[in-house]
Amino acid sequence: MQTPPKLFIPGPVTVRPEILDAMNQPMIGHRTPEFSALYQEVVAGVQTVLQTENRVYLSTSSATGLMEAAVRNTVKNRCLNLVCGAFSLRWHHITDACGFKSDAVGIEWGDAINPEHVEMALDEADYDVVTIVHNETSTGVMNPLKGITEVIRDNSDALILVDTVSSMSGVNIPVDDWGIDIALASVQKAWGLPPGFAVMSISDRALERSKDQPNKGYYFDFEVFEKYHQRGQTPSTPSLPHMYGLQRQLDRIGDEGLLNRFDRHKSMAARTREWALNHGFDIFAEEPYQSHTLTCIENTLDVDIAELSSQLLERGFRISNGYGPLKGKTFRIAHMADTQPDDLEELLGQLDEILA
Amino acid sequence: MQTPPKLFIPGPVTVRPEILDAMNQPMIGHRTPEFSALYQEVVAGVQTVLQTENRVYLSTSSATGLMEAAVRNTVKNRCLNLVCGAFSLRWHHITDACGFKSDAVGIEWGDAINPEHVEMALDEADYDVVTIVHNETSTGVMNPLKGITEVIRDNSDALILVDTVSSMSGVNIPVDDWGIDIALASVQKAWGLPPGFAVMSISDRALERSKDQPNKGYYFDFEVFEKYHQRGQTPSTPSLPHMYGLQRQLDRIGDEGLLNRFDRHKSMAARTREWALNHGFDIFAEEPYQSHTLTCIENTLDVDIAELSSQLLERGFRISNGYGPLKGKTFRIAHMADTQPDDLEELLGQLDEILA
Repeated sequence: MQTPPKLFIPGPVTVRPEILDAMNQPMIGHRTPEFSALYQEVVAGVQTVLQTENRVYLSTSSATGLMEAAVRNTVKNRCLNLVCGAFSLRWHHITDACGFKSDAVGIEWGDAINPEHVEMALDEADYDVVTIVHNETSTGVMNPLKGITEVIRDNSDALILVDTVSSMSGVNIPVDDWGIDIALASVQKAWGLPPGFAVMSISDRALERSKDQPNKGYYFDFEVFEKYHQRGQTPSTPSLPHMYGLQRQLDRIGDEGLLNRFDRHKSMAARTREWALNHGFDIFAEEPYQSHTLTCIENTLDVDIAELSSQLLERGFRISNGYGPLKGKTFRIAHMADTQPDDLEELLGQLDEILA
Repeated sequence: MQTPPKLFIPGPVTVRPEILDAMNQPMIGHRTPEFSALYQEVVAGVQTVLQTENRVYLSTSSATGLMEAAVRNTVKNRCLNLVCGAFSLRWHHITDACGFKSDAVGIEWGDAINPEHVEMALDEADYDVVTIVHNETSTGVMNPLKGITEVIRDNSDALILVDTVSSMSGVNIPVDDWGIDIALASVQKAWGLPPGFAVMSISDRALERSKDQPNKGYYFDFEVFEKYHQRGQTPSTPSLPHMYGLQRQLDRIGDEGLLNRFDRHKSMAARTREWALNHGFDIFAEEPYQSHTLTCIENTLDVDIAELSSQLLERGFRISNGYGPLKGKTFRIAHMADTQPDDLEELLGQLDEILA
C-alpha cells in the first residue's frame, strides 16, 4: 500500500508506530493468569484517566455498541436523550431501536446543551436515564458536562450516561466528582489507537439497574461483564492487540502527565480557532463550548471543501468535510490523541498555501 | 514480556508473524475509497472460502456478538437450539436472554446431532429459526452439517443459523450448496488471526426476515449492516488491523489452496487421534464426528491434567483442559489455522516425554 495520508479527521486518528509495535505481540490465552494481569493493568489505567473508583469494562466493539449496551441495561420507564448533533441523535435512534420509550430534547446544531434546558426537560416526564454526548463530533461542541450532570443529580434519580467518544483521555472528565454513571468511548479517537475496541466505566447503581432488566441479551449484558470482570477477564475473547496497545498508551499518557495531555489538546484547539478566524472563517460551535479535540470550522468564505480536501490529500493530509447536513457548510480539523503542535502547524501551513 | 507459550488451545491460536506484521499498517479513514477497496477485497475473499454468493458482513465483535445478532434479527415465533455442548447451549441462553421463545433439544455431550432427531424436533413446534454449532469446541464434535441442513430445509421454512466459529476456513462449508442462511465465525480460531473480529454470511431471506423485526437495536441490525455494505463500508468504525490481517490471510489461504488447507487440518486431526489412542486414551467425540480442527481427548488414563499442562507450559506449549463439566475428564489439543504437521509433532513429542 502507498503511504496513507496523515489523518486530521475525528477518528480514526494516525497511530504512533510505537503503539502499532506494541500491538504486534504474540497471542496469549484469555483464561490465563498472564491475561488477567494485562486486563487489570489496563482497567486500572483507564480508572486513573477517569479518576474513578467505578469498575471499567473492556469491550470488543465500537463505541456505538456501548451506546446500545448502556441503554439496554438501564432504561426502565423512559429515557431522555439530549440531542445537539448527529451522534447524540444517533443515541436517540438506538434507544428507540431497542424498544424503549424516549424523548429527544434537541437544540440547534452548533449550540451546546444548556443545564437550564435540561432542568426543564426533566420536569416534563419521569425519566430514569439521561444520555449526553460530551463532545459532539459532528458540530465540534463540547457540552458543559459538569453543569449538566449537576442539574440531573439535583432534579432526578436518573442514571447519567455519557458518550465521551472523542474526549476521553483528551479532556478532563472526573467521573466520580461529576457523578457519571456510565462514561464510554472507543479508542480510535482521543486515545490514539486503531479502531476496534471500546471502554466504559460503570457505577454501582448502573450495574444494579441491569439486574432485573429484561431482553438485554448476552454480549452487552453488564451482569455478564461483571461476572468475568471479577476474575480479571472479559466474557468473550477480546481483541488482544488492542489491549496491548492500550497498555502501552496508558504508559505513554503517564509519562506525558494527564494535565499536560489535556493542556496540549486545549492549546491546539485555541491555535486552530485562531488560524480559522484569521482566515475569515467562523467557528461553528458557540463560545465558550468549543471542543478541545476537534474544531468544526464554518465555511463562511464559501470555499470548495471537496477541492480543498483533494488538494490537501495530494500533499499527504486528510481533514473531514462537515457531517451529514453540514457537508460543504463546515469542515473539521481534529487535533486529538498524539497529534503534536508541530503536526498541527504542518497541516495549517499546507492549508495556508492552498488557500493563498 | 517473556515469550508466551505456543498455543494449541482452541482459540486464540498462535498467529504467524507475517499476519501480525500485516496488521501493523497506518490507519485510513473508514469513509474513504481506499477503505472500500479493502472492505470489498476481504468480503470477496470470505465469500470464496464459503463458496457463497450471500453477502458477507464484517463485525467488530467476537462471534458471541454475532450469535446474538443472528437470533435478534430473525426469530419471530420460536427458535430451536440444537445443543450438544457448552457453546450450543450458550446459543440457547443468548436466545432466551434476547426474550425469544426457544427450545433446547439436547443430546449427551460427546455425541453428534443426528438429522433424524432434528426431524423429530421440528415436528414438535412451529420453529422459524434453528441454531446449530457446526464444530462444538467443548466436546470436539463436528456435527454432520450437510445432513442436518437437508433435513431442516425438507421439513420446514426455518432459517438455518450456523456457528462455524472453530471450523470456518479450516473445514469445507459450502454455504450455498447446503442452504445455510447465516454462517458466522470469529477470526482467532481456524482463521488464524488475533481475537477481536468476526465475519458472517447472510442469505436474502435472513436479511428479509430482519426487516420488520422489533427491538433489534442498532449495533447488530442487519439492515444497518446492509445499508453500509452497499457502500463498501461498515456501520461504525471497524478494527482496521484485523481487516489488514484478514486481507493477508486470505492471500495466504489462496496460496496454500483451500482444499490443501482442509486436508492439512484433517490429517493433523487423524494424527492427534492416533497419538491419543496409542497412549491408551479415548477420543471424547463419537466416531465419525470427530472435529478436524481440535481433538478432545478423554482422560481414560486418569492423568493429572493440571500437572500435565503445567509441565508442558514449562516447555513452552499450552493445551486446554476440558471445558466446564469436562475439566479433568478431558483435555483438548487444537490443530487449526496455521498450525503445521511439524508443529503438532513437536507438541506430541513433548507430551510423549512428559507422559513417559
